[in-house]
Amino acid sequence: MQSVLELHTYLSDELKQVDSTLKASLETPVPIIKTLGINILSAGGKRLRPLLTLASAKIFTPTPPLEAIYLASAVELIHTATLIHDDVLDESQLRRGVKTANNLWGNACSILVGDFLFARSFELMVKCNDFNILTKLSKTSGLICQGEVKQLTLLNNTETSTADYFDVIKLKTASLFKTACFAGAKIAGATNDEADIMASFGENLGISFQIIDDILDYSQTAEAMGKQPGDDYLEGKMSLPVIELLKIKPDLKPIFLDKNMQNFETIKQEMFNHDIFSLCYQQAQSFTTKATQNLKYLPENDIKNNFSNVAHEVLNRAA
Amino acid sequence: MQSVLELHTYLSDELKQVDSTLKASLETPVPIIKTLGINILSAGGKRLRPLLTLASAKIFTPTPPLEAIYLASAVELIHTATLIHDDVLDESQLRRGVKTANNLWGNACSILVGDFLFARSFELMVKCNDFNILTKLSKTSGLICQGEVKQLTLLNNTETSTADYFDVIKLKTASLFKTACFAGAKIAGATNDEADIMASFGENLGISFQIIDDILDYSQTAEAMGKQPGDDYLEGKMSLPVIELLKIKPDLKPIFLDKNMQNFETIKQEMFNHDIFSLCYQQAQSFTTKATQNLKYLPENDIKNNFSNVAHEVLNRAA
Repeated sequence: MQSVLELHTYLSDELKQVDSTLKASLETPVPIIKTLGINILSAGGKRLRPLLTLASAKIFTPTPPLEAIYLASAVELIHTATLIHDDVLDESQLRRGVKTANNLWGNACSILVGDFLFARSFELMVKCNDFNILTKLSKTSGLICQGEVKQLTLLNNTETSTADYFDVIKLKTASLFKTACFAGAKIAGATNDEADIMASFGENLGISFQIIDDILDYSQTAEAMGKQPGDDYLEGKMSLPVIELLKIKPDLKPIFLDKNMQNFETIKQEMFNHDIFSLCYQQAQSFTTKATQNLKYLPENDIKNNFSNVAHEVLNRAA
Repeated sequence: MQSVLELHTYLSDELKQVDSTLKASLETPVPIIKTLGINILSAGGKRLRPLLTLASAKIFTPTPPLEAIYLASAVELIHTATLIHDDVLDESQLRRGVKTANNLWGNACSILVGDFLFARSFELMVKCNDFNILTKLSKTSGLICQGEVKQLTLLNNTETSTADYFDVIKLKTASLFKTACFAGAKIAGATNDEADIMASFGENLGISFQIIDDILDYSQTAEAMGKQPGDDYLEGKMSLPVIELLKIKPDLKPIFLDKNMQNFETIKQEMFNHDIFSLCYQQAQSFTTKATQNLKYLPENDIKNNFSNVAHEVLNRAA
C-alpha cells in the first residue's frame, strides 16, 4: 500500500512516539501483562488507526501537540483490546499469521489483558485534557461493544438484512475510524465543522475497510490472510458476501448453516459464480467515493491528497 | 448490617438516582445488552461502592452535586463489569443465588457486555468534568485488572506469600473502594488532604472486606453465600486462609492441589482445627482499625460516625 507506506515514512517520528507510548502503557508490576501485550502489539499490525489520528492532526497543523500521540496510542489500544477479546469470542488460533493470545495464554488471561488495555487507553485519553474529544472517545468503546453484541446475536441468522449488516459494521469498525480522525483533527485545532468532516471521512473509510475485510475472508487464501480460512463462515458471521449470496440463492441457507469445509468451498464457489465479490466491492467503492468527497471540503495540502490515495488503497488491498 | 441499612435509608434519594442512571446506561438499540445488564444489576448487590461514594460526598456537603451520582454509578458499573468478567474467568454458574450471565447467555455475550459496562462507566466519569477524579478513576480500572491477572498467575501456586496476597487484594478490591471514597469526597469539595484520608479509609475498608470474603468462602454454607461452595478452592485461588493453613501444615499442599469435594471438606476442617479463620479475622480487624483511625482526621458529623460502624459491620458480616 504505497500511500499508507508514504504516510508511515512521513509520520515516522510520531509513530515511533506512539510505539514508545504503547510500550510504556504495558509497564506494570505484573510481567505477563507486558509479555502478552507486546506479543499482540508487535504482531505486525498496520497501525492504520493511529496513522489516521496523526495524519488527521497533520492536516491542521505542521506540528501536532504531544496529546495527538496520546490519542493515537489510545485509539490503537482500544483496537488491540478489541482484537484480544474478539479472538477469545471467536476462539481464533491465529491472527496475522501468529498464534493468538488466547491460544498461547488461555482465555482468562486474554480477557483480563484486554480489559487492562481498555483501561490504559482511557488513562491516555484523559491525558489529552480535552472534554470534547474525551466524550467522543469514551462513547466509541461503547459503540464498538454494541456492534459486537449485535453481530453476535445475528450469528447464523440467515434472515439478517443488509441494513443490519451496516448497523453492525458502522458500530464495530467505522466508529473507531471515525473517532480516530475526529480526535486527530480536533486536537490539532480544527474547527468543529472541519473535525466533523474528518469524522465522516473516517466513518466512510471504515465502512469500506470492513466490507473489503469481509470479502477477503471468502476470496483469499489462508496464507494471504494470516489466519485460518473460513473463520467467518465457521462462526456464522452474517457478512455482506453471505447476505448478498443468500438473497440470490436462498436454497444455499442449509449449506451455509451446516458447517464443514466442503460446504465452505461450495459457498465460496457460489459467490464466484454469482459475482458476489464484485457486488460487495461496488458497495465498498461507494463509501470510498463518499470518503474522498468529504476531503474536498478541507484546505488543500499534501496529507489530504495522500488520504484520498489511502482510501483507494484500503479499497483495493489484497490482504 | 444496621449501619449500612441506615446509610441506605439516609441516602435513599441519591441511590434511586444512581439506579436510574445505571438503568439509563443500559439503554442501547441492542436489546440483549439491557436484558443481561439489568439481570446482573438487579441481582441483589448491596450497592456498597456507590454508597461509599455518596456517603463520602455527604461528609463534605449536605447537598452533593449531580456529578456525585454519576461517579457513584460509574463505580458500580466498573464493579459490575468486573463481576461479569470474573464469572466468565471462574466459569461460575451462580452469583448471589441467581444464575450468572455466562451461564444464561454464554461467555461471548458476557465478555462483550462487561466491556460495554466498562465503556459506559467511562462515559459517566467524563460527565463529572474533573480531571483529578478522572485520572484516579481511569487508573483504578487498570489496577483492578493488574490484581486479577496477578491472582490468575498465582492460582494453585502453593508458594504464594501473604505479601503477594495483599498485593492482589489491594489491586483487585481495595483500589475501587479507595477511589469510590476519594471521588465522592473530592466532588463534594473536600481538600486534597481530606480526599486522601477518605481514600485511605476506603482502601483499608476494602482490604478488610476482601479478607472476610475469602474467609467466608471456606467458613460458610453455600446457601449463605448464594454461590457454589468451594469455588475459590476449585479455582485454586491463593486466598489468605489457604496461605495461612499451608504455612502451618505444608503437608496439606497435595490435598489442596488435588481438587475434589472431599479434599475441600478436609481443607475446611483443617482450617477450623488450626484456628485459621480467627487468624485471618484478626488481620481483617487490623485494617478495620486503620480505617476507623483514618476517620479521626475528618470533621465531626453523623455520616462519619456511621462510617465507623459500617467498617465494623463489614468486618463482622456473615455473608
